[in-house]
Amino acid sequence: MRARVFVTLKPSVFDPQGQTVTDALHTMGYVAVRHVRQGKYFELDIDAATAEEAKSLAAAAADKLLANPVIESYRIEIA
Amino acid sequence: MRARVFVTLKPSVFDPQGQTVTDALHTMGYVAVRHVRQGKYFELDIDAATAEEAKSLAAAAADKLLANPVIESYRIEIA
Repeated sequence: MRARVFVTLKPSVFDPQGQTVTDALHTMGYVAVRHVRQGKYFELDIDAATAEEAKSLAAAAADKLLANPVIESYRIEIA
Repeated sequence: MRARVFVTLKPSVFDPQGQTVTDALHTMGYVAVRHVRQGKYFELDIDAATAEEAKSLAAAAADKLLANPVIESYRIEIA
């Protein structure tokens, strides 16, 4: 089963990577792109019988390794 | 309008970050996670009248800045 984990900085945390991408896009003329936030994306191939089991395993992995809960939040999709 | 861009390494390209995450999860006891691939995730706030316009702008940004087309592919979702 495949789990997708999206890790993003919490809204209150300054995102210098995203700001740099925003500035670069504006310099290139893409001024319609008002704001960019950058995050991390993980695809996990999981041995699990049910989607719930895969989701709970992905959440444990995200809590303990993939995301820093102090400054980041994450979202999980099971495909 | 919000566009989400997921950038991943092409399947034929070795992903050392993902391999390191896989190894770390196995060491932590999460052996049910067979394989991990890591990518980048961007949220773009776009001034666009239609979803098609937002998608085409996000695709242009991905082609020219967010992804390296030689080794990476990308996927766009409009929310």
